[in-house]
Amino acid sequence: MTNLTIIGAGTMATAIATVGVSGGTSVQVLSRNVDQGVQLAANLGELVTPGQVGDALTGDVVVLALPYTALGQVVETYAAQLGGKVLVDITNPIDFATFDGLVVPQGSSAAEQVAVWAPDAHVLKAFNTTFAATLESGRIGGLPTTVLVAGDDPTAKQTLIDVVEAGGLVGIDAGVLSRAQQLEQLGFLQITLASAQRVPWTGGFAVVR
Amino acid sequence: MTNLTIIGAGTMATAIATVGVSGGTSVQVLSRNVDQGVQLAANLGELVTPGQVGDALTGDVVVLALPYTALGQVVETYAAQLGGKVLVDITNPIDFATFDGLVVPQGSSAAEQVAVWAPDAHVLKAFNTTFAATLESGRIGGLPTTVLVAGDDPTAKQTLIDVVEAGGLVGIDAGVLSRAQQLEQLGFLQITLASAQRVPWTGGFAVVR
Repeated sequence: MTNLTIIGAGTMATAIATVGVSGGTSVQVLSRNVDQGVQLAANLGELVTPGQVGDALTGDVVVLALPYTALGQVVETYAAQLGGKVLVDITNPIDFATFDGLVVPQGSSAAEQVAVWAPDAHVLKAFNTTFAATLESGRIGGLPTTVLVAGDDPTAKQTLIDVVEAGGLVGIDAGVLSRAQQLEQLGFLQITLASAQRVPWTGGFAVVR
Repeated sequence: MTNLTIIGAGTMATAIATVGVSGGTSVQVLSRNVDQGVQLAANLGELVTPGQVGDALTGDVVVLALPYTALGQVVETYAAQLGGKVLVDITNPIDFATFDGLVVPQGSSAAEQVAVWAPDAHVLKAFNTTFAATLESGRIGGLPTTVLVAGDDPTAKQTLIDVVEAGGLVGIDAGVLSRAQQLEQLGFLQITLASAQRVPWTGGFAVVR
């Protein structure tokens, strides 16, 4: 039985916790301010255990639900505990100064950077191509919400896909970790479309199978 | 009234001609082998006029429905006629040797390269994120097929969006021409997913508004 740790307690953390709880997965929510996790537990029920960043990780799948710029420090904080864990990067590392590209080096991705910082973890890219609203509802445009999962370890990918599918969504193996480059460009494009009001934050890209 | 010229007579050319004809748009189809265009006209009706690559362009919107590697030569062939035209690049410039990325330089795109070759045309990126089947049917997963259009000239974008919407599809302004970088990564990702049989060639990414 997979247990989830989510670091962060914002909109995406809440949405991912909702998917986990919908599938019967225990979710540890670690935030700087423990009150946020307490509130999340109050909303989502007893499968959610709140804690503070710095507490021991109880999940075998750890989701970094923080902005890209915060990842380096939190990975360093947990360096000794990440070996063998499935470590999920969900970020869209947008250059908000220009809103015209990403801050990660060309030919790389946030997820690949996380893999450099946490070489003993099984790093995955996921959840960056689905807005929070479509994760929470599990639906987009009459279709099930699809989580695209990239990573180099097939077992790690399947573990996360199982959590997602238990929660009523669809999970698709999107290939090796370097496909995160494409997923991050897709996430960026989708955010530009929503920011320009071409699509709503309850819509965006759906995957049709 | 907009007229379309499509250079190429393959699967994507056929699909785009179908969209044009559905909306009552006249379509000149120029191919190396004129028989392909004749066949297309036989299938799609009298709005299609076949011709050979080298014939004068009759369309104010010119769609390059050829592989990326063929674009340089055809743009050179038509250099004297492209000034002021709307010139549409539909390619996914995949590195087929590795199937792991694109052949265009990082930080650029096929569409931006076409704009360098044809500086007097209004270059657009479009049709590279929709498989031929979803263009022809106009539907994907119960939703209308959406054509994402990037370019620096708003009037040129609206001209193409009008052609697409007359054909029963949805057209969305996806931003400036450099957003082609994101559209091409999305197109590449979608092709990897279909090649790996994660999505069918009749599916892929739909846009939910």
